[in-house]
Amino acid sequence: MSGFRHVVMFKWAEGTTTGQQDEVAAKLGQLPGRIPEIGTYSIGVDAGVNPGAYDFVVVADFADRDAYLVYRDHPAHRAMIEEFIAPIVAERAAIQYET
Amino acid sequence: MSGFRHVVMFKWAEGTTTGQQDEVAAKLGQLPGRIPEIGTYSIGVDAGVNPGAYDFVVVADFADRDAYLVYRDHPAHRAMIEEFIAPIVAERAAIQYET
Repeated sequence: MSGFRHVVMFKWAEGTTTGQQDEVAAKLGQLPGRIPEIGTYSIGVDAGVNPGAYDFVVVADFADRDAYLVYRDHPAHRAMIEEFIAPIVAERAAIQYET
Repeated sequence: MSGFRHVVMFKWAEGTTTGQQDEVAAKLGQLPGRIPEIGTYSIGVDAGVNPGAYDFVVVADFADRDAYLVYRDHPAHRAMIEEFIAPIVAERAAIQYET
């Protein structure tokens, strides 16, 4: 395997509803159809195994760093973050790495 | 795809050397040979694209939640954490989810 992976986790603010989280998942799920640079796109909700875990995660694989940057800066992605994620984020943790 | 994924990121404490980080990667890299419950095991170091990113990440895939729990609690894993990771961790972010 050779490529570039983006991983981001969120903890939601107190009072965030499952409906809001579902909306984030649904909106993110539309991005692969709009941003062809996305290779694989895995969205997950914490399974509740360990205390202190983050609430929500995206693991996205790209052909290379440039493809990731197209995704990062894509207007559909930015608008989705602004409208649905930013209002409910309490904590964010992210990393990008070569796979 | 159907399985269970564990994602964990670390920020290292100030003064952590690349040698220490390499040692963590090397020791983690031995775990799949010792813990057969591990499916795929991806270790990464931040590519330096975005400010504020975490330093180090592990994305591990398992057949199911029980297989993950074997890994989580395996003595080889716990000893490795205790000896090589715990002394240099500043921040940790983790999530587990069904894939």
